[in-house]
Amino acid sequence: MQAILLDGQWRPAQAVGTFSAFDPTNGQALPEPFPISGWPDCDAALDAAYSAAASLRNVDAKQIANFLDAYAERLDGAADEICTTASRETGLPILPRLKDVELKRTTNQLRQAATAARDGTWSMPTIDTANQLRSYFAPIGPVVVFGPNNFPLAFNPIAGGDFAAAIAAGNPVIAKGHPSHPATTQKLARIVGDVLAQSGLPPATCQLLYHVPADVGLRMVSDPRVGAVGFTGSKASGLALKAACDAAGKPIYLEMSSLNPVVILPGAVRERASDIADQLFTSCTAAAGQMCTSPGLVFIVGESQCDGLGQSVAEKFRAAPPGTLLSTGVQRSLHESVNRVIAAGAQLVVGGKPVAGARLAFENTLLRITGPQFLQQSEAFQTEMFGTATLLICAANTAELLELLSRLHGNLTGAIYSATDGSDESSYHQVAAVLRPKVGRLLNDKMPTGVAVSPAMQHGGPYPASGHPGFTSVGIPASLRRFAMLQCFDHVREDRLPPPLRNKSPNGQLIRCIDGRWSNESI
Amino acid sequence: MQAILLDGQWRPAQAVGTFSAFDPTNGQALPEPFPISGWPDCDAALDAAYSAAASLRNVDAKQIANFLDAYAERLDGAADEICTTASRETGLPILPRLKDVELKRTTNQLRQAATAARDGTWSMPTIDTANQLRSYFAPIGPVVVFGPNNFPLAFNPIAGGDFAAAIAAGNPVIAKGHPSHPATTQKLARIVGDVLAQSGLPPATCQLLYHVPADVGLRMVSDPRVGAVGFTGSKASGLALKAACDAAGKPIYLEMSSLNPVVILPGAVRERASDIADQLFTSCTAAAGQMCTSPGLVFIVGESQCDGLGQSVAEKFRAAPPGTLLSTGVQRSLHESVNRVIAAGAQLVVGGKPVAGARLAFENTLLRITGPQFLQQSEAFQTEMFGTATLLICAANTAELLELLSRLHGNLTGAIYSATDGSDESSYHQVAAVLRPKVGRLLNDKMPTGVAVSPAMQHGGPYPASGHPGFTSVGIPASLRRFAMLQCFDHVREDRLPPPLRNKSPNGQLIRCIDGRWSNESI
Repeated sequence: MQAILLDGQWRPAQAVGTFSAFDPTNGQALPEPFPISGWPDCDAALDAAYSAAASLRNVDAKQIANFLDAYAERLDGAADEICTTASRETGLPILPRLKDVELKRTTNQLRQAATAARDGTWSMPTIDTANQLRSYFAPIGPVVVFGPNNFPLAFNPIAGGDFAAAIAAGNPVIAKGHPSHPATTQKLARIVGDVLAQSGLPPATCQLLYHVPADVGLRMVSDPRVGAVGFTGSKASGLALKAACDAAGKPIYLEMSSLNPVVILPGAVRERASDIADQLFTSCTAAAGQMCTSPGLVFIVGESQCDGLGQSVAEKFRAAPPGTLLSTGVQRSLHESVNRVIAAGAQLVVGGKPVAGARLAFENTLLRITGPQFLQQSEAFQTEMFGTATLLICAANTAELLELLSRLHGNLTGAIYSATDGSDESSYHQVAAVLRPKVGRLLNDKMPTGVAVSPAMQHGGPYPASGHPGFTSVGIPASLRRFAMLQCFDHVREDRLPPPLRNKSPNGQLIRCIDGRWSNESI
Repeated sequence: MQAILLDGQWRPAQAVGTFSAFDPTNGQALPEPFPISGWPDCDAALDAAYSAAASLRNVDAKQIANFLDAYAERLDGAADEICTTASRETGLPILPRLKDVELKRTTNQLRQAATAARDGTWSMPTIDTANQLRSYFAPIGPVVVFGPNNFPLAFNPIAGGDFAAAIAAGNPVIAKGHPSHPATTQKLARIVGDVLAQSGLPPATCQLLYHVPADVGLRMVSDPRVGAVGFTGSKASGLALKAACDAAGKPIYLEMSSLNPVVILPGAVRERASDIADQLFTSCTAAAGQMCTSPGLVFIVGESQCDGLGQSVAEKFRAAPPGTLLSTGVQRSLHESVNRVIAAGAQLVVGGKPVAGARLAFENTLLRITGPQFLQQSEAFQTEMFGTATLLICAANTAELLELLSRLHGNLTGAIYSATDGSDESSYHQVAAVLRPKVGRLLNDKMPTGVAVSPAMQHGGPYPASGHPGFTSVGIPASLRRFAMLQCFDHVREDRLPPPLRNKSPNGQLIRCIDGRWSNESI
């Protein structure tokens, strides 16, 4: 059985069971068994992480930055090996997806996090010389990261965005891998373990558990030694972890579920229906719809517009070969969700059932309802269908559209397509007023899939898309501040202050707010 | 019966009961009855606030700033009337406390919030021109503010810090007053109502309910129309509201309870025991100990040091007349807490019981335990005693001290006194390493009472001092960001962007991060 990474050592797990991953292209179990860790493994990881957190507080940020850069470099060098393993476990193609897109994004995130750690401006040092008060965002303590199934590299808990942010902010990470791709996670962890051993950082800076039973996970996140938790995954798991963290007073940052409503106004349909149908098709079928920003609800005004666009999308859905799904769990859950939406009264336009055969797949699925149907069962019609399954909602007019949108829960994204000739302008403003507060990212004339790693990104949003609308899981430096506490130093003697708060700037790059003025200068 | 302020009108409440305040100096009920609002009042307030939130999103920030400045001006003009009423309901002296300190702090907060709203930099606009992404912190929606008993002005839900922050961030406030000072809250609300009527802002920007039953309060904070909640008060009430908000996915910012540990190292006692005893006495007895940052736990190393300092503080406690408490509830709760600490084995050095007579007061109380006692019952000895009641903990040596400190829960503040000659330096660093992650504000050679309204302040801290260690309830602009959501605009057309994100700077003062560079310039 495979070893876990605890306090710098690969050790046998105190396993309460084992599991194997599956090859989604043929449904066959892969040979290696991986351990399911019980509480003693978590306890050991927490102890080691708690000590490492204390040591990391005294480590120069440059050393952390160098570690992140070195890790990125090594990942680039091992691209073929990593992507071959990831493809086998996820069914995602090596090219372009894993090697040219996702791994590059992963190493880009690590390098951006290194830059943020090195210059330190993310921590927002604020100095009030008259009152002898100095504050900044300091590391919060050990961070437990739960990774999702759909991004085996860029959101992997031992290499992805939450990992990079937590480490760059100065915290150790306990990674809890996703059971659908343990060998991929292991490959990454082998590399991080090697790089860590050379880095001079505490050995427990990065630790890995492949899997834990649900109750053990809940106990781990509510442990007093934990600083914060990062989670990307299903709403059910996310809410269970959130309840445990809330009760224990621990910050948890969740990226849980999103329907990503797309509103297509009449002028846009008139101007460029075919182009919009192409974009919608491409966005819905990207990665077989297994994207957190995949468009799940499409609102169209007017029956003829809905017929036209619906028919065009339906043809594309019907013609395209269904993509491979990540796991039998995804396939089953998609089938159940589609059935729930059909049971609530949706018309099935295309698809609706699993593809026969050993490969894990589900027919590209398009469903359709009217505005009044949505109003009557707005909960059922906001069921997330993770995969290529999209619900068209045909609103009679703008007034009805606004009423429909007012029923939406929080989402990661919301998109509005409108005419370029100004004919939709009044409707646009009404729609945006309703949609804007309900989504983290508002798009114009653009589908929501494709999340740029930019300082201006918000990959988050109101509940239940996430647990707090003020934080983002993608985008540096903002994502680092999730894993930090605001620390104030009141009349603390100069030589006892952390370097970013001393009179002399630690590096000349750090931007600080000194008596109300932002500056990179020393005092 | 007194009217409530709903949607710009003073209206009779749909009361489920009434209550009266008490004059703490003689325990007599004050004549005016005030209404306890039932759900229909909350429902009406939420409806009006929800509409007001939508309107406020289109209001120029200058108009909000002018409103806050005008309110501050009017409060200054009505100082005598406000402070007379507040003194009658709270027993706090008009001079210097209410008029020279607390009201000035209140108007200072409103003016600082106005300045922050006017320049807009608090919202951290971030622009990535290459990816056409722009983000900033936007108003979160209606904010319900619960005020505490101990700061009738500076934390009043219709005038204090949470109010100023929520309004400056662009949100309407539903204020839920504290039942111990309804007439004070009413005076403030009358003024805010007048100023609001002249301001051009939506009438429901500021609304007031004097009191609600507990279950109605829980229902209100979990309502979908609410954006966020601010709470300052007891741990029991705070935790009940937190559970309701957590289940509904609503951000709640709590300032709940704090023991404010003070550590006095041997060299400091040797150097300046008498001065430290003076400072401790002054800090413990300020406002009869009814301060969230009042020192509740004092750690001293060495028995003789503990005897000396303990005796000196005991004499001062014994000699000083006990202050007047805010309410019978405070008196009862203080008595219960002191009894709990005594029951756990603490030695009662001075005080320990209510002062006889009609005036609400409790003897200045000093208790003492050894290190091993604290280790055995660290929960009971972390009982908050709200009032002048302090527990001395006598540690045998630095090693024991560190063990004691490791048992502390989260606190707002932690103070360390050390020698000026360097003799405590090694102990200081060990103590600070344990204490720093457990407190929001770390002080050197200074007592924790007295919270400066500074951009570098952290008035918050790890649970259970607050609900999230990344936020502060005092200090502008940081306190505004609690009442905001991070909104990203992706390819949104220039003329549809909110003013802070357009190419042209709205005012020349706003500092934005444009393609990685902070600047007040237009693009």
